Amino acid sequence: MRVSKAFIPTVKETPGEAEIPSHKLMLRAGLMRKVASGFYEYLPLGQRVILKVNQIIREEMERAGAQEVLMPIMTPAELWQETGRWQKYGKELMRVKDRHDRDYALGPTHEEVITDMVRRELKSYKQLPMNLFQIATKFRDEVRPRFGVMRSREFLMKDGYSFDVDDAACDKTYWIMFEAYKRIFKRCGLLCSPVEADSGLIGGSFTHEFMVLADSGEAAIAMCEACGYAANMEKAAGVPSPAAVSQATTEAFATVDTPEKYTVEDVGVLLKLPPSQFIKTLIFLADGKPIAVLIRGDHEVNEVKVQNALGTTELVLAPAEKVMEVTGAPVGFAGPVGLKGVKILADNALKDGHDYVTGALVKDKHLVHVEIGRDCAAPWYNDFRSVVTGDGCPKCGKPLKAGRGIEVGQTFKLGTKYSKSMKCVYLGEDSKDHEAVMGCYGIGVTRTVAAAIEQHNDAEGILWPISLAPYQVHLLLLNPAEPEVAKVADQCYEDLKKAGYEVLYDDRADSSAGFKFKDADLLGMPLSVRVGSRGLKEGVIEVKRRREKEPAKVPPAQVLDKVKEFAVEEWKLCAP
Amino acid sequence: MRVSKAFIPTVKETPGEAEIPSHKLMLRAGLMRKVASGFYEYLPLGQRVILKVNQIIREEMERAGAQEVLMPIMTPAELWQETGRWQKYGKELMRVKDRHDRDYALGPTHEEVITDMVRRELKSYKQLPMNLFQIATKFRDEVRPRFGVMRSREFLMKDGYSFDVDDAACDKTYWIMFEAYKRIFKRCGLLCSPVEADSGLIGGSFTHEFMVLADSGEAAIAMCEACGYAANMEKAAGVPSPAAVSQATTEAFATVDTPEKYTVEDVGVLLKLPPSQFIKTLIFLADGKPIAVLIRGDHEVNEVKVQNALGTTELVLAPAEKVMEVTGAPVGFAGPVGLKGVKILADNALKDGHDYVTGALVKDKHLVHVEIGRDCAAPWYNDFRSVVTGDGCPKCGKPLKAGRGIEVGQTFKLGTKYSKSMKCVYLGEDSKDHEAVMGCYGIGVTRTVAAAIEQHNDAEGILWPISLAPYQVHLLLLNPAEPEVAKVADQCYEDLKKAGYEVLYDDRADSSAGFKFKDADLLGMPLSVRVGSRGLKEGVIEVKRRREKEPAKVPPAQVLDKVKEFAVEEWKLCAP
Repeated sequence: MRVSKAFIPTVKETPGEAEIPSHKLMLRAGLMRKVASGFYEYLPLGQRVILKVNQIIREEMERAGAQEVLMPIMTPAELWQETGRWQKYGKELMRVKDRHDRDYALGPTHEEVITDMVRRELKSYKQLPMNLFQIATKFRDEVRPRFGVMRSREFLMKDGYSFDVDDAACDKTYWIMFEAYKRIFKRCGLLCSPVEADSGLIGGSFTHEFMVLADSGEAAIAMCEACGYAANMEKAAGVPSPAAVSQATTEAFATVDTPEKYTVEDVGVLLKLPPSQFIKTLIFLADGKPIAVLIRGDHEVNEVKVQNALGTTELVLAPAEKVMEVTGAPVGFAGPVGLKGVKILADNALKDGHDYVTGALVKDKHLVHVEIGRDCAAPWYNDFRSVVTGDGCPKCGKPLKAGRGIEVGQTFKLGTKYSKSMKCVYLGEDSKDHEAVMGCYGIGVTRTVAAAIEQHNDAEGILWPISLAPYQVHLLLLNPAEPEVAKVADQCYEDLKKAGYEVLYDDRADSSAGFKFKDADLLGMPLSVRVGSRGLKEGVIEVKRRREKEPAKVPPAQVLDKVKEFAVEEWKLCAP
Repeated sequence: MRVSKAFIPTVKETPGEAEIPSHKLMLRAGLMRKVASGFYEYLPLGQRVILKVNQIIREEMERAGAQEVLMPIMTPAELWQETGRWQKYGKELMRVKDRHDRDYALGPTHEEVITDMVRRELKSYKQLPMNLFQIATKFRDEVRPRFGVMRSREFLMKDGYSFDVDDAACDKTYWIMFEAYKRIFKRCGLLCSPVEADSGLIGGSFTHEFMVLADSGEAAIAMCEACGYAANMEKAAGVPSPAAVSQATTEAFATVDTPEKYTVEDVGVLLKLPPSQFIKTLIFLADGKPIAVLIRGDHEVNEVKVQNALGTTELVLAPAEKVMEVTGAPVGFAGPVGLKGVKILADNALKDGHDYVTGALVKDKHLVHVEIGRDCAAPWYNDFRSVVTGDGCPKCGKPLKAGRGIEVGQTFKLGTKYSKSMKCVYLGEDSKDHEAVMGCYGIGVTRTVAAAIEQHNDAEGILWPISLAPYQVHLLLLNPAEPEVAKVADQCYEDLKKAGYEVLYDDRADSSAGFKFKDADLLGMPLSVRVGSRGLKEGVIEVKRRREKEPAKVPPAQVLDKVKEFAVEEWKLCAP
């Protein structure tokens, strides 16, 4: 494609509306434009990237045995009412009335529609497993659309759904999809970690989020650089640093004065003891009922973990009056010794420690030399804490790091949630009806495009992975006014195209070499070929990788070989 | 793909909901299913066909210099208000309110959005021509969705828009698109005629409809089998059969009694004269004002042509009282001789005739021996009639035929309609602002799929053009219980795939050979390979073209060669 004929409206200035690098660069490089808040249009370069992501997804889904379908965007309300999501979904679900006043939703996801499709055709266990996907436009009326296409209201998504005879078969399909997802993101040139995520209240199922590591990510994750373990912070487990005291004390517990010292830090300074020798006791209301959670002084309670363990739908810190009522003391002096009438939960990390300091259930007093099990009953131990930097990896023991990620995909075991409410059943080998066991698998296509930029950019612009680059080679004609130079560049263009490369040819007659260099850096094709009079006088053409500072200078006859050599290197970075 | 693992729910019975062949066959062959009135889901085979149509469109658009973009489906009301279409569009435009109560339309077409996109970036004439397209989901809330995906409420469409400096440049782009469209439909294996269509009230521009000839088509067209001329009936011109009398009469006109004979037919019988010797005089109200249209007795007035010639927005036959008021006689006795106070239009076909019979402007009386120009003033001649079977082709003179067609594409010169109202201007070489001259170009993707079936089917099922077929080769294992037969079929499967064919392998263990034959005919892949024990005993495998009755019987080692030979023949049928 000749730039002189292409619609690539690049912008020099950083647009004010953009906060994160991918949003800025997608605007500046002319990949997309905003039509309205949360609604974008993709210009030719952006659309080329989208088509490449789609193609990678299609190939890998087919390879994994999934079949492509296409469901309507406009989905009748009746289907959503069957599962109760018509009511539950709230304002994020965009609703439409047709000319006959019938209700529809613009699908934000298609569990209902696909379950309806399958239940109409499913008769026998012999038809299973069934694994179907589509790549289609989705709508979610986000309260606050932001970060460009990263969180928009209309977006492209690949959504897939599997149907299996039982849980074990569903597991098998799940892991096939899991591996396919890893391949997809690798082929997109993304450093992407599948992290264990919280499955929330949906039940005993499990789920992974596929996270592209990037500082601008909305999700907090814990990861181990040594072994690759990664988990959503809400779900992450870590091996705590050792307890301050590893031997039980023989001294009886005793009360000490801690006037106006409420925090672990302050009491620690007073008593000259490290935070890890403290037990913090927090009073929560779990679905309105008070509970106490014990946690080591240097740790934080992970409320999602507490909630999942209890199976409650609401968990809030108890207000001061309630703390007074439950503990007999103001906030800051709670402790397990003598605490009555509430369920007591304790984080696993407390198990190994001894000789603890706790609140005394009396204002301005703490207890020292506390032994759990001796001075108070053994509580309900479980993993109730959030991972902190420095925790050991639960897999390899090396230190965990906190990071941020962009969720580009999610795999989910749904179980029979939808097949039960929508009666998607098959006749089993036992001649009885069974509900199909489902999984669902999503990839944000347009979000993947943004995430790739988020992970691959520098001050000058984008650095496309070759698998997603709108064009693989950017050919620059540096001195368009000189016919001899133009002739060589034209020949390069033909040769490169004939060799099978996608080439963007900056043949513009009215742009300076400097301007073209800047545009090439901004647009970020992985390879560029620069044909200029100075080089040709020396008998060379420059071939440059976007990720490297210096170009290779080769005689014109060797340009194709050098491009091939560099392209092979680039493709290695996207090998699954 | 193995049929045992594929989601291809074929149906034996013809579904009651379907009226036309493509609708029936898309349901029976498991290509799609209805989700709600006018909303369909495409199952794996259907989606494969859609992707092939998309790919052909992409390749040909790129070849023609158009660039692909992707615009949002959800389009803000403000854009539609700028052109006035928010009001004009009526109920066909599906409207949505977001959570902030803002108005949007689900785009049925994207002139406003693309003009907005381009006006923001367009500065100089140097950026033109610009030719952009997308392949995307569209919504039109049809009053009466029918014929399956042929007239649905959500459908896939390729819509393209061009921007040029002036009318001449727009023409050039228009004809490039026109040629690209011809290539696209040929490559889709469709016998498709670009017909001249009426451009209605949009103005002096012109337009072509691309019609797939099929009896089930909604559009009436006139076509010439000799030279390929074709036109929408509303627009078609034809050479009329000769007039009944070719010499002027020397007799003066005279009144004859025609009691209670109102029609050309009745009066003709009475006077023993052919209908072509009559002038019918019809009184219309054009935007409320009476006019008279003269037409030969064997012809019909084409109201669209009258309307376009007059430039009026409404044209209706005058009610009886009005006819009485204007002509002084009841309906049936109007004529040009002595007719006063109304504009008189006459169809060109009247020019060559003489010695006409007309109404006498008196009840139960007609005039004979009427000469136009002698007995009444020369009226305004123009083409005001509809083509009838037997008319001569305006290009070659051979007889025209009436037919029906499915409109799968339309090309349109828009002029400055949108660039004017939306201020899409560029700075010309003359340093002045000019409005871009636009064209637009649509292809119904899902409709093209249905049209292909409409044109290619028989009593047993579909006959896919090889370019659109979900799979090129249907491999049938006829005796799955016999391991030796299965082994040969398995080997065929691997060999065919390795040779680059898309193969659907009916490996089902529990289906009879007869059932598999029936399915193969229904699904309609262009080639099938049938591996059975009877054939293998004779040392042969059957290779069959769907369009031929008898298979070729070849030794196993020659299967690939035979498939290749047949495939080459099939591809020739889709050559552009």
